Amino acid sequence: MKLGQATIKDIARELNVSNSTVSRALKDYPGISDETKKKVKELAEKLNYRPNAVALSLRKSKSFTIGVIIPEVVHFFFSTVISGIEEIAFKNGYNVILCQTNEKLEREKSVLNTMLDNQVDGLLVSYSKETTDFDHFSKLLNLEFPIVFFDRLPEIDNTINVTVNDYQGAYQAVKHLAEQGYKKIVHLAGPNNLAISRKRKDGYIEALRDSGMEIDENLILSCPNGDEKESFDATLKLFEKPETRPDAIFAHHDIVAAGAMMAIKSLGLKIPEDVGVVGYSNWQFSSMIDPPLSTVAQPGSRIGEKATELLLQMIDGKREASAKGENVVLDTELLVRKSSVKI
Amino acid sequence: MKLGQATIKDIARELNVSNSTVSRALKDYPGISDETKKKVKELAEKLNYRPNAVALSLRKSKSFTIGVIIPEVVHFFFSTVISGIEEIAFKNGYNVILCQTNEKLEREKSVLNTMLDNQVDGLLVSYSKETTDFDHFSKLLNLEFPIVFFDRLPEIDNTINVTVNDYQGAYQAVKHLAEQGYKKIVHLAGPNNLAISRKRKDGYIEALRDSGMEIDENLILSCPNGDEKESFDATLKLFEKPETRPDAIFAHHDIVAAGAMMAIKSLGLKIPEDVGVVGYSNWQFSSMIDPPLSTVAQPGSRIGEKATELLLQMIDGKREASAKGENVVLDTELLVRKSSVKI
Repeated sequence: MKLGQATIKDIARELNVSNSTVSRALKDYPGISDETKKKVKELAEKLNYRPNAVALSLRKSKSFTIGVIIPEVVHFFFSTVISGIEEIAFKNGYNVILCQTNEKLEREKSVLNTMLDNQVDGLLVSYSKETTDFDHFSKLLNLEFPIVFFDRLPEIDNTINVTVNDYQGAYQAVKHLAEQGYKKIVHLAGPNNLAISRKRKDGYIEALRDSGMEIDENLILSCPNGDEKESFDATLKLFEKPETRPDAIFAHHDIVAAGAMMAIKSLGLKIPEDVGVVGYSNWQFSSMIDPPLSTVAQPGSRIGEKATELLLQMIDGKREASAKGENVVLDTELLVRKSSVKI
Repeated sequence: MKLGQATIKDIARELNVSNSTVSRALKDYPGISDETKKKVKELAEKLNYRPNAVALSLRKSKSFTIGVIIPEVVHFFFSTVISGIEEIAFKNGYNVILCQTNEKLEREKSVLNTMLDNQVDGLLVSYSKETTDFDHFSKLLNLEFPIVFFDRLPEIDNTINVTVNDYQGAYQAVKHLAEQGYKKIVHLAGPNNLAISRKRKDGYIEALRDSGMEIDENLILSCPNGDEKESFDATLKLFEKPETRPDAIFAHHDIVAAGAMMAIKSLGLKIPEDVGVVGYSNWQFSSMIDPPLSTVAQPGSRIGEKATELLLQMIDGKREASAKGENVVLDTELLVRKSSVKI
């Protein structure tokens, strides 16, 4: 047998177990002893077994199904992206299946296998916050499997990606706060391993600089979880000391902004008179809270449409998965509401 | 060939076309002429071709994948149900794939086929608003395919279901409004073909009756789409005439309540002083709007957990799909916030 062409059958024969035992052992399913799992995995490694390669080469026909891997469906932005994906997919006779990773790398790898087992024709991926090693995607791309990444740019060369101009969105938001006369603008930032967080921070810094303001690292706080509780606590802390007491907050998304607003109100301060607030992502609730929240709208539906168009081109052989990469960058839009209008 | 056992191959042979043409014609995929589709479908009908029966009988091993069919991922309630489903599924070594129907029957049938093509071991289903004929589910149940329905109760005998006590939730909400001294309580109701809508309406009616109030059909308005715009307009209309001008609103979910609140505020009226409002479902934003919205919390995560536990029992053969039906009904909880507290 040639290296790199071992199948589940080869492994099963060698170890004198059933094919299904090998398959389940490789996937870490329950009901298989740790010892068997170890044996199977070691032999698979030795024989350079590549499950996806075999599965992919066995594919005879298209399934007309697209797989979408996203961090969390509850995130409003992702639900708008899904609408755009389905719009284009259904129009072209494709169905869409979704898996969420809950921002966990382990789940991402697991749902990736599920998607491939289910013979999807291609994948649209926004990877998890935990993902710093992209091998599980690179392997597939090397096998010419169609993948388009959206929102979060992977650290892999020559991928096809659809993202938004996060830098520009953040820049406009902070420039707007400066123009409203706010002088001490805090940034509640996202996790640093996501390019979108770094770009929003860069936009914040550049806008401060262009407005003639000092950059103070103490005014950049990390809110990696992105829930209200975290930003509520972080915001209260800022107000404890005069040197970090802000008169405006730019949050990396609207839930984080909402937590900050609750903290500001709990201190008896007024929004936008005492403290201005701008969020990011234009969640469904953002126009309904008090005061309505200024935010940066991302073209979620358009991202989904564009990513799906590119993926279908790859699936239909009109674009090679291994061809030169392409980044489609879509513009954001600043929505100015009451929370940041001082003058 | 015996009736009921025709395969795609049989149809292909008879019509002298490829298997893949038959498969795609049956699924209404593009690229197949209408004439071929018609021929294939007629012969399939004649031969009593049952795609799922064949697919299911061919299954040799479990896929360790559960399929979830939901109306919309953007609905906060469903995202909490999904969390519960994944909690139990992952613990038991299962992956979860999701499809949304966008409340369309046609898509529901289409994603159902996708799920079965993908060899899911069982299905968790909350059907679409458009679904009034349940044949596509009944057929599968007759084949002993494991399905648990959640939130929305299908009109099929002897199914396994997990729902919440919508009647009780609505009853408590309206009783609370009456106890706060509101005298003219409007109900913004959901689509009448959903049992959950009818039960919420029943709870509303019974609570009015128990509080000694008249039932006035003019005070029950249908908001079937469930978006803010619809309930905004419906609410404004109520205030146009003295006879329908309410002093309280019970909405069938929080987005509908939020639309009503915007309408009330646009008229210069105060919540809860002039008009009290209670919603349903406890959306993420409901505690953040102004004033914070009283609502009926459904145990979303618990619904997902319970439904998945029951499904895994069926998959593992510990419970027969065709056995006597079972309804698990979980209790709701009234969350009283500022929007409905007059006294």
